[in-house]
Amino acid sequence: MVQIAVMGYGTVGSGVVEVLNTNQASINRRAGDEINIKYVLDLREFPGDPVESKLIHDFETIVNDPEIRIVVEVMGGVEPAYTFTKRCLEAGKSVCTSNKELVARHGAELLEIARERELNYLFEASVGGGIPIIRPLNSSLTADEIIEITGILNGTTNYILSQMTHEGIDFETALKEAQEKGYAERSPEADVEGYDACRKIAILTSLASGCQADYEDIYTEGITKITAEDIKYARKMGRAIKLLATSKKENGRFFAMVAPFLINEMHPLYSVNDVFNAIFAKGNVLGDVMFYGSGAGKLPTASAVVADVVDAAKHLHRNIMTFWSSRKLELTDLSDAKRRFFVRVKGNKKTDAIKMAEIFGPIEVVTAELAGEFGFITGEYTEAEYKERAARTDAVIHMIRVEG
Amino acid sequence: MVQIAVMGYGTVGSGVVEVLNTNQASINRRAGDEINIKYVLDLREFPGDPVESKLIHDFETIVNDPEIRIVVEVMGGVEPAYTFTKRCLEAGKSVCTSNKELVARHGAELLEIARERELNYLFEASVGGGIPIIRPLNSSLTADEIIEITGILNGTTNYILSQMTHEGIDFETALKEAQEKGYAERSPEADVEGYDACRKIAILTSLASGCQADYEDIYTEGITKITAEDIKYARKMGRAIKLLATSKKENGRFFAMVAPFLINEMHPLYSVNDVFNAIFAKGNVLGDVMFYGSGAGKLPTASAVVADVVDAAKHLHRNIMTFWSSRKLELTDLSDAKRRFFVRVKGNKKTDAIKMAEIFGPIEVVTAELAGEFGFITGEYTEAEYKERAARTDAVIHMIRVEG
Repeated sequence: MVQIAVMGYGTVGSGVVEVLNTNQASINRRAGDEINIKYVLDLREFPGDPVESKLIHDFETIVNDPEIRIVVEVMGGVEPAYTFTKRCLEAGKSVCTSNKELVARHGAELLEIARERELNYLFEASVGGGIPIIRPLNSSLTADEIIEITGILNGTTNYILSQMTHEGIDFETALKEAQEKGYAERSPEADVEGYDACRKIAILTSLASGCQADYEDIYTEGITKITAEDIKYARKMGRAIKLLATSKKENGRFFAMVAPFLINEMHPLYSVNDVFNAIFAKGNVLGDVMFYGSGAGKLPTASAVVADVVDAAKHLHRNIMTFWSSRKLELTDLSDAKRRFFVRVKGNKKTDAIKMAEIFGPIEVVTAELAGEFGFITGEYTEAEYKERAARTDAVIHMIRVEG
Repeated sequence: MVQIAVMGYGTVGSGVVEVLNTNQASINRRAGDEINIKYVLDLREFPGDPVESKLIHDFETIVNDPEIRIVVEVMGGVEPAYTFTKRCLEAGKSVCTSNKELVARHGAELLEIARERELNYLFEASVGGGIPIIRPLNSSLTADEIIEITGILNGTTNYILSQMTHEGIDFETALKEAQEKGYAERSPEADVEGYDACRKIAILTSLASGCQADYEDIYTEGITKITAEDIKYARKMGRAIKLLATSKKENGRFFAMVAPFLINEMHPLYSVNDVFNAIFAKGNVLGDVMFYGSGAGKLPTASAVVADVVDAAKHLHRNIMTFWSSRKLELTDLSDAKRRFFVRVKGNKKTDAIKMAEIFGPIEVVTAELAGEFGFITGEYTEAEYKERAARTDAVIHMIRVEG
């Protein structure tokens, strides 16, 4: 029997207990042993809950119990999760987590501790919820150089953008609706400002490069400035606005960013709507692959955590190699990235388009029957060049990057 | 150094050599050792080819060389691949293959031999080409009961159906075009009659159930009867015709089939076009996930084979558990499967729709401006009931199953 402990009895933690109970027989068969929850750690009381008898409030009980071989950390946040995880690994226990914040910040160090002790630190659920992506990157796409990973990694913002597109509503209304449905939190900054997607693309970039991509280095722009008018232009162009988290290898160097993009209907992420997530990867020999599914939610996320527990149980004395060293990855600067830009400007198409073309070079004008303004797509140049050109006029209302 | 041998220097075999050469450094780093091709087995000569010095014609050289630890079998067909694979495993060598025919027929037995000897028999490339699906099923979706796997598993037929849809051409023209482009073979039966997709869904069903699904038991219908007229009706309904290979668990029993289906635009496989493949899986806690990519082609398939070689090199003395016993899986009969049916009948909508409703129950009439005929979608009932109803009239031109 493999004894495990669950730290944190919130949404994901209670999901982990539920998944282990629901699929007990098949999980034990696949793990090659019986998995049993010995402790559930939470500061709160849960009178009448099935886990009541296993509930403990003191972390020391877990770390000092030699029977505990695997610890599930689903507390979230950096502290005390970081200290607890480190102490568990140092005490010879493998750790499985959904904590993207902690993995993005201290993944390299925790993996190193696990490796030294022939243990495992597994974090499939930290990116893409129930979608398998960490394990495929580590053990399926091993014949390839991964040259691009681009994903819709945040379900809340994708839901909001989908609603804005299909219902024609503005950002504030869509956010309020998402909050009412439980798809967005009451303090939605982590989602709508792109911070959540940023941590996830940092993790994927670290795995693709084998080095530490610090999320503070990744240019991040959320969706709070996207308006109903932007969506009108997008529809006119047959494009969708999606919050993309992207990481590309060019000339041997990595570039990463999170921002809203206008993508066309041939793009594999175009039809990923509502709370769904998808991750698109390009290998130098494999070509394109895409993974799609529920990027969040109690049970899908818990399913990924439990799959890690099964893997940890199968590898109790053997480290599953993960290439992610603490050597810092120097990301190339945003200003060198080349692309086309969609720009909305004040003015009249007939009288001002020529002036705009003088500033922005050859442009493709787009109108969405909005009074006193028009839009256009530029040719391809660097972000630095765009910035320099945009500074020459005060007509710019909003700029959105164009992909494909 | 890990010495390997490649059996078969055709499309996939030469791709394996190319991938190993192209990404040598990163592959060796991930395998934890240097992988070296010692022999390439083929009956033909390849004068001037880079592998010329490694080329051998006698299988005994491989099986009798104790240095060879991993053998890549990319010969295709059941014999002599089956005998060679068995002898390699019995001689203590792991085997990686793309051979769906052999895996579908003898997978359980070969896995058992590998397991007994702490070796591995790996076959990621046998389904979905470069798309990771076998490994995700074995090691990512382990917390779930898989209740459905449905895929577009054959690129040739998907290309033909896509061309028929987008160009309005008939089956024969689309097939000829696919042959000219190298997407279809000169003897296209294995693809267009659905046999290829049938072997692949047999493999996936065996992995999902843990028992042997025999492909002879799987109802298989190809796309040769799909006409330009069928496509016209499909477009009228806003649906696409796709050759689906599907496997479902209902009331504890599995059901599998391969046939063309009319799917609506909300279906995750709706926008999978051209030679692309995609596999959709439903877990009882995870919900829906989808894997998408190049389902065939030299380099994508070779990428999957080489990823297996990396895994085999990392597990030289340790079997990676795969649950697939030789116990026969009793599939439920096609006649019990319930669904809606699209039926094209001779006659006139105005005068004959009532007669058809008397036979087929409440129907939803569909017209595509074709003289002397009309179509309709029935309510939901079993295949047996459809067959019984259809036998009551001689007006039926063609029936296509409806999904979703």
